Amino acid sequence: MNLKENERIDYIFDQKMPIIQSSEVFSFSLDAVILAYYTRISPRTKVVVDLCAGNGAVATFLTRKTKAKIFEIEIQDKLADMARRTAILNQATEQIKILNIDLKDSLKYLEHDSVDVLCCNPPYFKVSAESIQNPNQTLAIARHELKTNLTEILFTCKRLLKSGGRAFFIHRPERLTELLSEFAHYDLGINQLKFIHSFRQTNANMVFIEAIKGKSSAGIKVAPPLYIYEGKNLYTKEFAKIIHG
Amino acid sequence: MNLKENERIDYIFDQKMPIIQSSEVFSFSLDAVILAYYTRISPRTKVVVDLCAGNGAVATFLTRKTKAKIFEIEIQDKLADMARRTAILNQATEQIKILNIDLKDSLKYLEHDSVDVLCCNPPYFKVSAESIQNPNQTLAIARHELKTNLTEILFTCKRLLKSGGRAFFIHRPERLTELLSEFAHYDLGINQLKFIHSFRQTNANMVFIEAIKGKSSAGIKVAPPLYIYEGKNLYTKEFAKIIHG
Repeated sequence: MNLKENERIDYIFDQKMPIIQSSEVFSFSLDAVILAYYTRISPRTKVVVDLCAGNGAVATFLTRKTKAKIFEIEIQDKLADMARRTAILNQATEQIKILNIDLKDSLKYLEHDSVDVLCCNPPYFKVSAESIQNPNQTLAIARHELKTNLTEILFTCKRLLKSGGRAFFIHRPERLTELLSEFAHYDLGINQLKFIHSFRQTNANMVFIEAIKGKSSAGIKVAPPLYIYEGKNLYTKEFAKIIHG
Repeated sequence: MNLKENERIDYIFDQKMPIIQSSEVFSFSLDAVILAYYTRISPRTKVVVDLCAGNGAVATFLTRKTKAKIFEIEIQDKLADMARRTAILNQATEQIKILNIDLKDSLKYLEHDSVDVLCCNPPYFKVSAESIQNPNQTLAIARHELKTNLTEILFTCKRLLKSGGRAFFIHRPERLTELLSEFAHYDLGINQLKFIHSFRQTNANMVFIEAIKGKSSAGIKVAPPLYIYEGKNLYTKEFAKIIHG
């Protein structure tokens, strides 16, 4: 595999899974590992979609737990190209299909009400006059809502998912009011929230969301939280299991 | 102090604080202790209101941390009567005033935009055709939204609180979508959520909410959770500190 400038290969799950990374373009982080770990896929699942797929880390991790077809939707050419080569490295080109498109065009490539499981690690931050964005445009697009936003993503999610299909997101607790209201608006009833804290003593910095299309928005379950670090540079037992696969 | 039929006195905080309880009318539970513990009152606080005050446990607990005037608003005569006698037992009749009124009438007794801190442990459950209510009407009113509901409570809360005043609630995570949307609707920006789990391995069964009148609904902080039990009948260290004062 030829790597491009500034690219490297990271191996995760005890060296078994190579992912092409780039500090200049995109590198997956713990968010992607957590999202893939908690995304539940049943043996009956036929079609999985990863929206805002980035370099394809989430979808690649998912191949460990499903044989279902996985579509990655990614607007940025450079990231979609990394994802394509990562699929080749992992001999997953039969299972994974990369759609290098704007998610607004998803319905041109996939049928509505056809998807069993959808996961998404979207850009976390709203764009405002004051927001400080990365001067590197590729990184900024992955982090800030420059090319899409929560409303567009959830609208697409609703169109793609079957009734009863499940959406799995990872996002920021700061936006919880907006998240819960928008999920409800798009008929995605939240089944479970799980907060992720870096340390036992710190506020949550991520929230994992499981929603079901057509479910009522009442009856949210708040699962026990996940803690990442026990101390400086030391993972908790629970997270060590997740990251070592 | 003369106790009425089925009444007893429970002492909490290492026997220092007597509260009149009744299995037939109302008994405070851990919810009240947690609400009082996390309600933050600054030295500048002059007026505190406890909505849906029940037997006055929350307000009585608060006398340990503030000299501010505390108004208890309670619609049920029997509960307000227990609260009144509990205030006497605790020699707190100067500080605590019990208003035995429907909270819809609060503005007849208290000025709008006059309250610094408001706390509330409201009836948790919606009333529906299927909801199973306690046949004891007094207990049912404390538990189910028979005499008031979330909308009415938050409307009252908004009217009473000063701009920048703080509301502290304890409620059920199942209703989080509705809670976040209604708090935002009544201009009560949520500052902090803290989930309470009976055990480390179980879903949250309560949520503590801190909101500020006039604050934006973006920027929610999710604090580290509170766990109640370490094992069967054994409190966690953290909760033992709370319950023993």
